[in-house]
Amino acid sequence: MVMTINWIETNRYKEARTGLLMTKRGVIETPAFMPVGTQGTVKAMTPEEIKETGAEIILSNTYHLYLRPGTEIIDQAGGLHRFMHWDLPILTDSGGFQVFSLNSLRKVSEEGVTFRSHIDGSTHFFTPEKAVQVQNILGSDIMMPLDHVVAYPSNFEETRDAMERTLRWAERSKNAHHGGEKQALFGIVQGGFYPELRKKCCSALTEMDFPGYALGGLSVGEPLEMMNEILDISLPLLPTEKPRYLMGVGSADALLEGIARGIDLFDCVLPTRIARNGRVMVPEGYLTLRNAEFARDMRPIDPECSCYCCRNYSRAYIRHLLKSNEILGLRLTTYHNLFFLAHFVAAIQRAIREKTFDLFYRDFWTRFNKNGNNMERSE
Amino acid sequence: MVMTINWIETNRYKEARTGLLMTKRGVIETPAFMPVGTQGTVKAMTPEEIKETGAEIILSNTYHLYLRPGTEIIDQAGGLHRFMHWDLPILTDSGGFQVFSLNSLRKVSEEGVTFRSHIDGSTHFFTPEKAVQVQNILGSDIMMPLDHVVAYPSNFEETRDAMERTLRWAERSKNAHHGGEKQALFGIVQGGFYPELRKKCCSALTEMDFPGYALGGLSVGEPLEMMNEILDISLPLLPTEKPRYLMGVGSADALLEGIARGIDLFDCVLPTRIARNGRVMVPEGYLTLRNAEFARDMRPIDPECSCYCCRNYSRAYIRHLLKSNEILGLRLTTYHNLFFLAHFVAAIQRAIREKTFDLFYRDFWTRFNKNGNNMERSE
Repeated sequence: MVMTINWIETNRYKEARTGLLMTKRGVIETPAFMPVGTQGTVKAMTPEEIKETGAEIILSNTYHLYLRPGTEIIDQAGGLHRFMHWDLPILTDSGGFQVFSLNSLRKVSEEGVTFRSHIDGSTHFFTPEKAVQVQNILGSDIMMPLDHVVAYPSNFEETRDAMERTLRWAERSKNAHHGGEKQALFGIVQGGFYPELRKKCCSALTEMDFPGYALGGLSVGEPLEMMNEILDISLPLLPTEKPRYLMGVGSADALLEGIARGIDLFDCVLPTRIARNGRVMVPEGYLTLRNAEFARDMRPIDPECSCYCCRNYSRAYIRHLLKSNEILGLRLTTYHNLFFLAHFVAAIQRAIREKTFDLFYRDFWTRFNKNGNNMERSE
Repeated sequence: MVMTINWIETNRYKEARTGLLMTKRGVIETPAFMPVGTQGTVKAMTPEEIKETGAEIILSNTYHLYLRPGTEIIDQAGGLHRFMHWDLPILTDSGGFQVFSLNSLRKVSEEGVTFRSHIDGSTHFFTPEKAVQVQNILGSDIMMPLDHVVAYPSNFEETRDAMERTLRWAERSKNAHHGGEKQALFGIVQGGFYPELRKKCCSALTEMDFPGYALGGLSVGEPLEMMNEILDISLPLLPTEKPRYLMGVGSADALLEGIARGIDLFDCVLPTRIARNGRVMVPEGYLTLRNAEFARDMRPIDPECSCYCCRNYSRAYIRHLLKSNEILGLRLTTYHNLFFLAHFVAAIQRAIREKTFDLFYRDFWTRFNKNGNNMERSE
């Protein structure tokens, strides 16, 4: 995995950068947002539609695919790409976040984590080696190691122990992975909201020399400023020539702040999940299309948007679909939100290239928030 | 509305015919199957996808649209076509079938029918005139008059009274309709399973001279043979130069039998509804994709099918989507079933033109039924 980076030097936003991430299955222009296809499908979308929105890479989940349909079936299909009919890059999360979200259903040891399936209650044992092995079979282009994720908030000792275990597991994952040419294994920075733990983790992972670095354990309910502070202290400690991935962030405001600090990749269920609840992204923030105010509103979701949804359908029609529980409603809102984010990061790429990112940043914050109700960053 | 018909003369299947139905919004090659978009959307599909499957006309429902979003909003949008982004012909059912299905929620008089909304329990009064007026606002290309539908089975007197009322209401509908150039109002034949009532209704409607005739009250749970008998006695009494529409039929076997008797148009929720339950149409009958036997089946739904779904996805993947409650699963099965039916009728059109319909008919029945489990005609 090679990353070519151009970055802009201005007084305030010197870390914002645009680049090209080269993978065997395609080039990803960064900064990039990765739509989430947890179960081997980006909810409500076809692969062709995802490409149409402008996405160049999607995320899927080791934990979910391992449980259903199971690794063996995906292996038999010739890997995840062929199984789901997606030929561009895929990043697979290890499942650490999912397993540790199970709370009462899991038990962690130095060797690995025992958990019960959320589908049928069956018991499974995951180790760093197993997570790598499953992802080798899935054939994703970017793999994530199993990490020990703690709840927010957690005390210093718990956070430190989990971070140190994450480092030891990162080392084991690296040793277990033998397909470095085809699949890049990233390192994941943990350490909660304790600056010294974050710093220690960044330095240790950098020393292990991963082809890319992810920031985990953020966007878990904390205020945006708190996340930004962790980015501010972490990113300078990661090598500039490697891609940086901020996990679980998918709102325009948090994306912009992450990019301003040097993040290259993002993923989040937010744009697709809120879409299924009838919430759509516009430059001012969000619209809740089920609201009565849109019943006779014949304008598109975003009059400035050129997506399939905004070219052909009114807010009134989409509201009717949502109120009638029609699948097309979810499809249109999902399509719009993914298009919105893909075009948002594309506009930022242009701004960075043209050295106008500082202007873009100020304009965004002038317009955003106007409608209030922007509390959609974490879910 | 003009219909140009070419029909084949063979010994056994002399009534099968192919033709062109000319409307202001497009030509429909017949026999044709009309996908159902009850609430102003064919469930799970975009208009572009419906066209891709080969459909040239869809059906929507006056009753549902009148209740939600309401006639006023569709009027404000510039009619149903613009509201739902579909520029080919639309046939709207009057809502008679829906209103009379409400049972305890409705009360019928000579003037019209009072019913309570299935959505919010509000009370509404529909007359033949009102049904026409609403459809004038919807702007559908083919309109259906309000008819008095009886349950199956019903006794002779009840069926006769409803049929005679349907005739009086047909007359009133005709008088109320002033947009004959733009919108064709069909007559609906009722009379249950009583041959003399059916005959009387056919003759009376023919005398009123409608631009097309629908057969209602069929495909309501009776055996296929019973429906075929009613078609056999009814169709010879309808003018050959006018389109004939068999309401509520959407299985390949019943379509074929209808076409063999001279039917030109069909509609049914069957292909889209069973798709959402994971049932798909193949030349042998149906596959239930949720079944365990398909878990590792890497073949497409129908190896002979060239639809988007069959070109790109395996039964195993679609099963995984369905088991995981993923919307893409319903989209793919819906797409396939609509494509299957559109291409089924297209193959019949060719067979009739090439005077090989008798062969097609025999081949179909040799192959169909092999898998048993074809009890999907009525739902």
